[in-house]
Amino acid sequence: MKAATYVAAGQLELMEQPKPSVVKPTDAVVRIVKTTICGTDLHILGGDVPACKPGTILGHEGIGIVEEVGDAVNNFKVGDKVIVSCVTACNTCYYCKRQLPSHCEDGGWILGHLINGTQAEYVHIPHADGSLYHAPKTVEDDALVMLSDIFPTSYEIGVQPSHVKPGDTVCIVGAGPVGLAALLTVQFYSPSKIIMIDLSESRLEAARKFGATHTICSSDLEEIKAKVAEITDGRGVDISMECVGYPATFDICQKIISIGGHISNLGVHGKPVSFDLQDLWIQNITLSTGLVNANTTEMLLNVLKSGKIDATQLVTHHFKLSEIDKAYEVFKNAGENNALKVIIENDISPA
Amino acid sequence: MKAATYVAAGQLELMEQPKPSVVKPTDAVVRIVKTTICGTDLHILGGDVPACKPGTILGHEGIGIVEEVGDAVNNFKVGDKVIVSCVTACNTCYYCKRQLPSHCEDGGWILGHLINGTQAEYVHIPHADGSLYHAPKTVEDDALVMLSDIFPTSYEIGVQPSHVKPGDTVCIVGAGPVGLAALLTVQFYSPSKIIMIDLSESRLEAARKFGATHTICSSDLEEIKAKVAEITDGRGVDISMECVGYPATFDICQKIISIGGHISNLGVHGKPVSFDLQDLWIQNITLSTGLVNANTTEMLLNVLKSGKIDATQLVTHHFKLSEIDKAYEVFKNAGENNALKVIIENDISPA
Amino acid sequence: MKAATYVAAGQLELMEQPKPSVVKPTDAVVRIVKTTICGTDLHILGGDVPACKPGTILGHEGIGIVEEVGDAVNNFKVGDKVIVSCVTACNTCYYCKRQLPSHCEDGGWILGHLINGTQAEYVHIPHADGSLYHAPKTVEDDALVMLSDIFPTSYEIGVQPSHVKPGDTVCIVGAGPVGLAALLTVQFYSPSKIIMIDLSESRLEAARKFGATHTICSSDLEEIKAKVAEITDGRGVDISMECVGYPATFDICQKIISIGGHISNLGVHGKPVSFDLQDLWIQNITLSTGLVNANTTEMLLNVLKSGKIDATQLVTHHFKLSEIDKAYEVFKNAGENNALKVIIENDISPA
Amino acid sequence: MKAATYVAAGQLELMEQPKPSVVKPTDAVVRIVKTTICGTDLHILGGDVPACKPGTILGHEGIGIVEEVGDAVNNFKVGDKVIVSCVTACNTCYYCKRQLPSHCEDGGWILGHLINGTQAEYVHIPHADGSLYHAPKTVEDDALVMLSDIFPTSYEIGVQPSHVKPGDTVCIVGAGPVGLAALLTVQFYSPSKIIMIDLSESRLEAARKFGATHTICSSDLEEIKAKVAEITDGRGVDISMECVGYPATFDICQKIISIGGHISNLGVHGKPVSFDLQDLWIQNITLSTGLVNANTTEMLLNVLKSGKIDATQLVTHHFKLSEIDKAYEVFKNAGENNALKVIIENDISPA
Repeated sequence: MKAATYVAAGQLELMEQPKPSVVKPTDAVVRIVKTTICGTDLHILGGDVPACKPGTILGHEGIGIVEEVGDAVNNFKVGDKVIVSCVTACNTCYYCKRQLPSHCEDGGWILGHLINGTQAEYVHIPHADGSLYHAPKTVEDDALVMLSDIFPTSYEIGVQPSHVKPGDTVCIVGAGPVGLAALLTVQFYSPSKIIMIDLSESRLEAARKFGATHTICSSDLEEIKAKVAEITDGRGVDISMECVGYPATFDICQKIISIGGHISNLGVHGKPVSFDLQDLWIQNITLSTGLVNANTTEMLLNVLKSGKIDATQLVTHHFKLSEIDKAYEVFKNAGENNALKVIIENDISPA
Repeated sequence: MKAATYVAAGQLELMEQPKPSVVKPTDAVVRIVKTTICGTDLHILGGDVPACKPGTILGHEGIGIVEEVGDAVNNFKVGDKVIVSCVTACNTCYYCKRQLPSHCEDGGWILGHLINGTQAEYVHIPHADGSLYHAPKTVEDDALVMLSDIFPTSYEIGVQPSHVKPGDTVCIVGAGPVGLAALLTVQFYSPSKIIMIDLSESRLEAARKFGATHTICSSDLEEIKAKVAEITDGRGVDISMECVGYPATFDICQKIISIGGHISNLGVHGKPVSFDLQDLWIQNITLSTGLVNANTTEMLLNVLKSGKIDATQLVTHHFKLSEIDKAYEVFKNAGENNALKVIIENDISPA
Repeated sequence: MKAATYVAAGQLELMEQPKPSVVKPTDAVVRIVKTTICGTDLHILGGDVPACKPGTILGHEGIGIVEEVGDAVNNFKVGDKVIVSCVTACNTCYYCKRQLPSHCEDGGWILGHLINGTQAEYVHIPHADGSLYHAPKTVEDDALVMLSDIFPTSYEIGVQPSHVKPGDTVCIVGAGPVGLAALLTVQFYSPSKIIMIDLSESRLEAARKFGATHTICSSDLEEIKAKVAEITDGRGVDISMECVGYPATFDICQKIISIGGHISNLGVHGKPVSFDLQDLWIQNITLSTGLVNANTTEMLLNVLKSGKIDATQLVTHHFKLSEIDKAYEVFKNAGENNALKVIIENDISPA
Repeated sequence: MKAATYVAAGQLELMEQPKPSVVKPTDAVVRIVKTTICGTDLHILGGDVPACKPGTILGHEGIGIVEEVGDAVNNFKVGDKVIVSCVTACNTCYYCKRQLPSHCEDGGWILGHLINGTQAEYVHIPHADGSLYHAPKTVEDDALVMLSDIFPTSYEIGVQPSHVKPGDTVCIVGAGPVGLAALLTVQFYSPSKIIMIDLSESRLEAARKFGATHTICSSDLEEIKAKVAEITDGRGVDISMECVGYPATFDICQKIISIGGHISNLGVHGKPVSFDLQDLWIQNITLSTGLVNANTTEMLLNVLKSGKIDATQLVTHHFKLSEIDKAYEVFKNAGENNALKVIIENDISPA
């Protein structure tokens, strides 16, 4: 089969790879219908993720059709349409039992990282019962792809630990795909004000369309603090979400947080940040970090089915699997292309 | 009346001050029976708390007898024996309504800080209904003094936000009075293992007596990490509590925390800390900070009344108000005196 | 002043009563601008609430202008526009400290019940700081009146204890004002399906307009069970809310609840209900009851200010205080008048 | 093999049955070392559980040694010492994903009910990874048997949903094995007062030994109410736990509950109860029911390992599997035999 393979730093190739098959009785094989590219894939391609070895097929998102199942798979059969979760969950290890499948001892985030991923005609799925979800017919394919990673990530890591309440004021720093998904999912709880901060006016325009009540196009801390103070009667925001991954963006989050507020970190950080405990020790704040557990996928699916949220808003571009190079090219230069999520359709082995 | 007054940096004087009286209808005046010294008093005396002006009577802890009440005080009458809370709560401001009386807009921590405090014969208490508690006869006076600040602080800032569960493993960094109070109050929830880290063997001996299952006498990060790993099957602790207030002690807390764990910060910090988001962004941790709200005082009183905990274990020395200089001397050199909390009894105007 | 006074069972009279004035330093007097009638007022008028003595001015809802304040009132001054809460809270008694001002030992629901109420030109408000809220200029008066009782009641007693999650299925039994308010406030949390059950087609039409996704016009248990099963794949609803107060309506709630579901009781019951523990002991359900605490008033105000919800949808009729008899007449026969909430404006002593 | 088989109503026989073997790749077979009898076994034997067909081997508790495992079992290997959970969990069905394995669509409580159970030489365990737990060497066998059902049941159904806080007052109605296990596990949270109600003085004596601070030997409602009022300053208990399963014992629980309190139902009920909504609608109470999920087994194991609780206190008698008739005889007449849990050791196929 054809598969987008990480060959070396900076080098991706749609090359021939062996078609996967069931090895363990809990495995499934899925024919990919649609997949997408995540910022993490660019990190791997950049050579920043040494755990991902050259030769690995990239991708941890997608929908498809079950092609083969092992004897111990109970919930899926050949022909089922499924969402592939970015997290593989055995459901019985130390971390899974603590509701942390993100750190599953026989899974976690392994697709397109430690094992072959979804940017291919077919993908091998270990622990299929814990790692696939039935795809309803009433939700569009593009929307379903958003349930593999970006929606659960924004919801579980950004929204849930913040305990956002109706009427709260929220600030999201970073209007990339994850920040915008957080903007969509935080609205499940009816905050009154949502401030979005970014340096791209076009992304902030998207944010306003998606429901942001205020936008700040700046990286100047004093300007940001002044604007947030104005919006919040000088109290700061109830919740700030870091969706970028730099010390400077974390710093914004901690400088605008109110007494009793919560900072959710969604960004992937490469170095330590300076944390203002000299000010914050007395402020009764909480902070959370984390990798997605993907254990809210069905809940999010219920929301999508109800039509309360249009997940396809996040999709800006469509490509074929045979032209995946172009998809990467556009996504790498997301700013100039006004790209958020790009959908890649399997045109090599369609239904 | 005689009152321990902050005269200038480094200078405390037991001097004559006017006896307070009720000014607002919600005020009370309390004759102090017993008070104590807090680490914060030493900070003020050291000149590190500019908000506290020379001339202020120090102290925010104590028990006493109500001497006078305003017309709008409903819950207390002259002659009642009371615990003075370190936090003054109006109960109706923006923060009090959000259960954050620590940040009360007409109170908070003001005693012995922004207004005169408890290290005196008498103390003036604003918002008496929200700031005093009835003292039961069945609990010893010394134990009741621990309810003014140290017990609620350790419980509300250390224990409650950590959501400690039966069977958990907890590490407390710093075996001073607050760390030891956290050691006592965390046992309300039956953790399996409690590791105490300090540099003083005598404090760690106290810790073992108070219930620590493991102690580590070291500030060497690698040694600490190795010992914690050994105790926790390499997973780290479910909860770490920072009870010192330095970057190095915070660093211990973040280096030994398990996936899914919680860091409670109780220390008063003077500068930023380096926060390992490059490692922790993926670890699904939470962190909390804060000033005590003193809204668990009655709950803690119920526990003391039941005899489940002996709060007097924290009291190592007794002095008279007339010899408060000696008390400060001993408390300042707590290490060499094996001092934890020192009780100061009002011998100038006793019952 | 003129005041709607409960004279005897079945007899309400807009009669002359003494204008109230401040007695205790924590009191305020408010000139009423708008008030409304609650189902409870009809109960009192029916003679079913013996604690309410003849001669009492009815009403526990309304907005107005502060006319006079006691010395110990900190948060309000003469001229302030305020919302009068149906719950009077001292904030420092046993129950208030446990966040149950509904059972305040010096308050609770006393307005128009144990002390004179709001259906008058002026009302006397004890514990003003805990019982009044500043009325923002940006929200319509009629909407603000809904914050006195019906919105907090539906939210705190119906929605909060149900822990409704995005994507859940909710069933509300009873489409009267409280049920419809629950329908509005439960949408703060983005449930996927909301089923409304009532016997009045016109109320169900209102329900559909307010956001119900399904309506059932029936009191036939088998029919209801069958329809709910169809909507929920046979699993029952995640949350059912009893908004009527009869054994039969409670029975619907317990017969349609799913495994792991929650029953919120909002109805005022006059007799015991038969509770199906022989079936439910194994179903892992929870159930909650309660009187409103009115401690979410500011949160709800924030939601109203954001424009996310139009509280005036509940208002169907407008009257003048001088014609309050007509208002009662319409409200008593709510069904035939398609009446939900009726607003009564003070035309006797307007601004 | 020999197995205690339900032959007909009232008739149990230790008869020859085929030794089980692995059928599905997720199965295991366990050689039983110790098992015990549950009140539910008596119900089955009484003919009250029609779902349990004659021919079924009884028992859903026990410890043993893994004899055989299927290909898809990851966490256990032949020779491992294990605790058999009373709940079989597939971990991936609708209910398991909602943390309700009690209602697992391919499991739940099936052992000794819908499939053969543990009162035998060997037992067949479906979904072994989700239904077995590694038995530590440092905890006594008798204590480990208590983790199969009675400890998780009392903790998850009695204690967890009650959100008991340090200092609370708890009343447990029924001092049988489940009530006494609840008495032990509720102490993980340091309540101040625990009242135990039963009609057997010898069980109440056990209760006092296990930590009850007050006991009431009565079924007279007025007497009970008066005594509880005396213990609780007239407020009632914060938490009441129904551990019997009759309308009268449920009635005690609802009559003594405080405002804001919680009723946990642990009893297995055969008919509806009269629920006092006419009084309780206004009392802000919560209530919970349920079957054990057994998802706290590892947490409880950690507590046992720490030595904080002696689970063997619940064990009063020891028998051999070959004399299981005697064990049933004693357990059926628990009152006159002062029996709580009886341990049955496999003497037919010992190690």
